[in-house]
Amino acid sequence: MMAKKIKLMYSGKTKQIFATEDEDLRIIAYTDDAQGRDGEKKNVNGKGVVNNKLTNILMRVLESEGIPTHYVEELNERETLIQAVEILPLKVIVRNVAAGSIAERMGIEEGRKLKRSVLEICYKNDALGDPLINSYHILAFDLATEDELDTIKYYTHKINEILTEFFKEINIDLVDFELEFGRLWNGQIVLTDEISPDTCRLWDAETGERLDSDRYIRNLGGAEEAYTEVLSRVLQAC
Amino acid sequence: MMAKKIKLMYSGKTKQIFATEDEDLRIIAYTDDAQGRDGEKKNVNGKGVVNNKLTNILMRVLESEGIPTHYVEELNERETLIQAVEILPLKVIVRNVAAGSIAERMGIEEGRKLKRSVLEICYKNDALGDPLINSYHILAFDLATEDELDTIKYYTHKINEILTEFFKEINIDLVDFELEFGRLWNGQIVLTDEISPDTCRLWDAETGERLDSDRYIRNLGGAEEAYTEVLSRVLQAC
Repeated sequence: MMAKKIKLMYSGKTKQIFATEDEDLRIIAYTDDAQGRDGEKKNVNGKGVVNNKLTNILMRVLESEGIPTHYVEELNERETLIQAVEILPLKVIVRNVAAGSIAERMGIEEGRKLKRSVLEICYKNDALGDPLINSYHILAFDLATEDELDTIKYYTHKINEILTEFFKEINIDLVDFELEFGRLWNGQIVLTDEISPDTCRLWDAETGERLDSDRYIRNLGGAEEAYTEVLSRVLQAC
Repeated sequence: MMAKKIKLMYSGKTKQIFATEDEDLRIIAYTDDAQGRDGEKKNVNGKGVVNNKLTNILMRVLESEGIPTHYVEELNERETLIQAVEILPLKVIVRNVAAGSIAERMGIEEGRKLKRSVLEICYKNDALGDPLINSYHILAFDLATEDELDTIKYYTHKINEILTEFFKEINIDLVDFELEFGRLWNGQIVLTDEISPDTCRLWDAETGERLDSDRYIRNLGGAEEAYTEVLSRVLQAC
């Protein structure tokens, strides 16, 4: 498919979105930019390439299992053609093992397997620090309709099952992950954003080694190697 | 009924709970202690008397509408006989108008009427600052069973309807309020704690004047007069 970037529409912390000549299609471009604690700017060499490739592979896996996504076509190693969506102002998080903010919120140690998966929804708002909210806030503040919320929860549980199984086969525990959803021009809800070590906590199932963004956020070193390792295991599985 | 305090079981910020000779009964005693911002200790003369009286009147109103409560009998102006309960570690909040933490969380002005009432559940844990949680946390961390949670939500919505109507008739807007629930010896869920200007935001329906704990928390002055005013209106309505 031919597609040309005609205008930068959005420049985020790690990605850019461009308009194309077709108003229903956009181009997402992954950079190597990374953000440490307190917004400190970092660079992880090759991260954009890994995240573009991984996201596209995982979106196709999810599509094959009936989850609609924004994915259209990979254009090059950093750029992918996607459907234009209106992004819902929600960060949808699934936690299978306690790590990060849930450990602080509940006062428990990191690494504890949760009795059941926990779904959290945060209000996507940088100025407010993406606060945790619940279904009542979403409906009272018109952040999504009740039908959309039901659809998002249904897809999210299904995505957790599919991805947990997928990563298990390559010896990785899917500890937690964060999703974003958007509305197509016709109102259909689709998965958008990315699925990568920037948005998933991925721990080696045997050693517990962190193969995700905590490597640079927590200054553990070896971020490039971790990202490459995840991509290499995923490519072997495909 | 005869009842004698035999042992202090719990001393809270504004109340004490005593064991009695009957292990299924306890005595709740309301003090004049108050807590300002950042835990600053204050005293609001007569507050304990108002809160004891008000809570008992409102619990009886709720009982008459089918909501089970811990209330047994008022013993004197500061003390009430209650059923012994195992308190669930949850603070259940209903918000009809945005005020306090929801205004900060969502980035909106105080005083905005919410499109729908918002129910929030916090994990009752002083050390963690009573963080907002959701149903998934409650079930994954065994803070209540699924049946108990359904019961609590059902009662809470009904309590909001009853109390909103009750206060409306005495020209007070029920802006928001906080409830606690407990388990009786037989597992039954009942409303516990108190219902007072310490746990409800009550604004005069015409002037918007605050008739609740924000008077001392926000150093507005006139706390004693506000508490007395609420009690006086409630007594006229009964």
